[in-house]
Amino acid sequence: MTKVETLERLVHVPLGERSYDILIGPGLMTRAGGEISTRIKGRRAAIVTDENVGARYLDGLMDSLQTDGIEAVSVTLPAGEKTKSFDYLTKVCDVLLEARIERNDTVIALGGGVIGDLTGFAAGIVRRGVRFVQIPTSLLSQVDSSVGGKTGINARQGKNLIGIFNQPDLVLADTDVLDTLSEREFRAGYAEVAKYGLIDKPDFFEWLEKNWREVFAGGAARIEAIAVSCQAKADVVAADERENGRRALLNLGHTFGHALEAATQYDSSRLVHGEGVSIGMVLAHRFSARMNLVSPDLADRVEAHLREVGLPTRMNQIPGELPPTDVLMDAIAQDKKVKAGQLTFILTRGLGQSFVADDVPASEVQRFIEEMRPS
Amino acid sequence: MTKVETLERLVHVPLGERSYDILIGPGLMTRAGGEISTRIKGRRAAIVTDENVGARYLDGLMDSLQTDGIEAVSVTLPAGEKTKSFDYLTKVCDVLLEARIERNDTVIALGGGVIGDLTGFAAGIVRRGVRFVQIPTSLLSQVDSSVGGKTGINARQGKNLIGIFNQPDLVLADTDVLDTLSEREFRAGYAEVAKYGLIDKPDFFEWLEKNWREVFAGGAARIEAIAVSCQAKADVVAADERENGRRALLNLGHTFGHALEAATQYDSSRLVHGEGVSIGMVLAHRFSARMNLVSPDLADRVEAHLREVGLPTRMNQIPGELPPTDVLMDAIAQDKKVKAGQLTFILTRGLGQSFVADDVPASEVQRFIEEMRPS
Ligand SMILES: NC(=O)c1ccc[n+]([C@@H]2O[C@H](COP(=O)([O-])OP(=O)(O)OC[C@H]3O[C@@H](n4cnc5c(N)ncnc54)[C@H](O)[C@@H]3O)[C@@H](O)[C@H]2O)c1
Ligand SMILES: NC(=O)c1ccc[n+]([C@@H]2O[C@H](COP(=O)([O-])OP(=O)(O)OC[C@H]3O[C@@H](n4cnc5c(N)ncnc54)[C@H](O)[C@@H]3O)[C@@H](O)[C@H]2O)c1
Ligand SMILES: [Zn+2]
Ligand SMILES: [Zn+2]
Repeated sequence: MTKVETLERLVHVPLGERSYDILIGPGLMTRAGGEISTRIKGRRAAIVTDENVGARYLDGLMDSLQTDGIEAVSVTLPAGEKTKSFDYLTKVCDVLLEARIERNDTVIALGGGVIGDLTGFAAGIVRRGVRFVQIPTSLLSQVDSSVGGKTGINARQGKNLIGIFNQPDLVLADTDVLDTLSEREFRAGYAEVAKYGLIDKPDFFEWLEKNWREVFAGGAARIEAIAVSCQAKADVVAADERENGRRALLNLGHTFGHALEAATQYDSSRLVHGEGVSIGMVLAHRFSARMNLVSPDLADRVEAHLREVGLPTRMNQIPGELPPTDVLMDAIAQDKKVKAGQLTFILTRGLGQSFVADDVPASEVQRFIEEMRPS
Repeated sequence: MTKVETLERLVHVPLGERSYDILIGPGLMTRAGGEISTRIKGRRAAIVTDENVGARYLDGLMDSLQTDGIEAVSVTLPAGEKTKSFDYLTKVCDVLLEARIERNDTVIALGGGVIGDLTGFAAGIVRRGVRFVQIPTSLLSQVDSSVGGKTGINARQGKNLIGIFNQPDLVLADTDVLDTLSEREFRAGYAEVAKYGLIDKPDFFEWLEKNWREVFAGGAARIEAIAVSCQAKADVVAADERENGRRALLNLGHTFGHALEAATQYDSSRLVHGEGVSIGMVLAHRFSARMNLVSPDLADRVEAHLREVGLPTRMNQIPGELPPTDVLMDAIAQDKKVKAGQLTFILTRGLGQSFVADDVPASEVQRFIEEMRPS
């Protein structure tokens, strides 16, 4: 046994006949062929990737597949959110059918959440479903988008409005490949890692406060943080696969976050998703304090940690002008079910004690934003 | 109780939490609003239809929905197989999102199998699934495509290659609307009705031999034939929702039939699906006789009945030239799994005694087609 192998972690997602494993550790990419061929019968595969990831990792993955007797084709798409469209969905389906991918053959998503969401959708609709393996390469996709089975594309009416639930057959989270991810993207993914602590794992949040530098540096702490995050999401998903109840907790920080993303027209030069979540989580804690659910000290503590890792925590850190408060409120109402002036928010009663509050007065939220926004 | 109501039949499709009812009878269209509003919470609906059906039935359906407090929008698409495309899928999704159809609102397919397949797919992917009601208006869609949950579109590589399983919440098969269906389309749907008899219901086939004129005329016999057909398909689907085993029997006549459809470039002026199935079922019976599984008398009997109702039963009845036999063989091999020169076919050991034969020598099939084709 080499050290490399002992570091590896396995998270099992128990979903009956849709159960699957998430492997987390270094060097997994070079073993992909072996891991896939022991689990999936078909000898054909199609890899979907984007330009950034493909340039770095496609050849290695192809080699690994070939070594294990899997014949693979690939398609490389532009990087970025715009790729989650009907046009690219059509394109990917066409590639899969041309490659004669059948029910027991494998479609591999090699990339971040954009590639994972698009490819998982395509794999679920070609021939009414073929095998699907996620090789998430961004921190966000390793700890969030590759777990849970949500796949899809964007519509002009909003993000992720078209898609299906499609659980993968296997997830290979190679923690080495995160070394080539930009600092900013790594930090954005880290916001989701911290989120799992803030939802219901106070010990994990404390551990992150102490060990975040090691998580950023790589090695055992990074693997640990990713494994805890995957396990946390897997637990929620196993309890609530189709998103009716508890799964809503995963939206901590996301109602404010999504509103800010919409307010910046999803312009990633101004704000990426994890940054919106970071600001959103701080706002959710501040708002909880304002509703007398927790002490303002907790909001300070959460903000201090996120600021320390380099994440934005306040609306005034977003470059450029923000729209007026009522436009932000519209975006919040869009995102959440509004019933008679009441909004649903994830609030907290303490560190790692988040809960779903479905009776938050819209007027309180509006006043709160007005005070918090840059003047 | 009026006579109309006593005629109505209900087929329940037992699929756990995806169970649903098929109502079959006269005048259902005018009661659609009531049937939907007692089963589905949402007060919004979007109707997808085609030009032929929309011109006749859209206003009536809208009225019925409005009467029961359901606010509906509609979109009317061109009639015909070409509408089962990514372009129209995109279009329908856009209409549903613009209409703000949410999880508990209803998408209604008003039309034949083309509209049902396309709409069911769209309803399954918008917001990862909203409510879906089928109002099938062709005989084929009432007895076949609206039961079983297969939805999808065509790709340039072949028919129905992209889609999902999406069980409807309700099917309303209004038997009156079949009066405006062309004779040719009615007959094509009838081929599928006869198919259920030939699969495993010899008594039903005998009943059809005696009563087919009443089925064509409308009234109680038509309702009976549709109800028996829906029940037959529902039984198979309940036993095998995701199509792994027994469901293959539904392909009786379809391997030959699909090859003929492909050979005529899906040109409906030459051959519609049910006509291909009719010829295919006769071929399947003749081939069974040739393999000494049944007497040639059975093939004669099946052919006599299908000819009597006006369906084509021989390849030489297809207008225009058919491609050479090896091209037909390629189409057959495409359609079915070929392992080492062996084809899978649905053959029969007697009236209503069909079975899956997965070791049919391709060479025998080739020779058989060579003899049967027009010279
Ligand atoms: N399905 C879900 O449950 C779920 C959950 C959260 C987010 N999402 C979706 O995920 C998407 C965001 O994911 P993301 O942040 O991974 O975005 P992304 O896929 O756009 O990746 C971010 C950037 O990093 C690059 N990149 C990725 N891995 C790299 C690597 N190892 N080295 C160098 N560059 C690399 C990409 O090319 C891209 O430019 C959004 O579309 C969001 O809606 C889905
Ligand atoms: N999902 C499944 O399980 C399944 C099964 C079998 C067939 N199919 C699909 O179904 C489609 C064929 O269905 P179809 O035969 O209903 O074709 P269709 O939808 O094209 O309808 C046939 C024609 O009849 C017209 N029409 C329908 N109802 C009418 C009415 N009441 N009055 C007047 N005109 C009417 C239509 O406008 C069309 O021109 C194919 O795409 C096939 O792949 C799906
Ligand atoms: Zn997120
Ligand atoms: Zn058919």
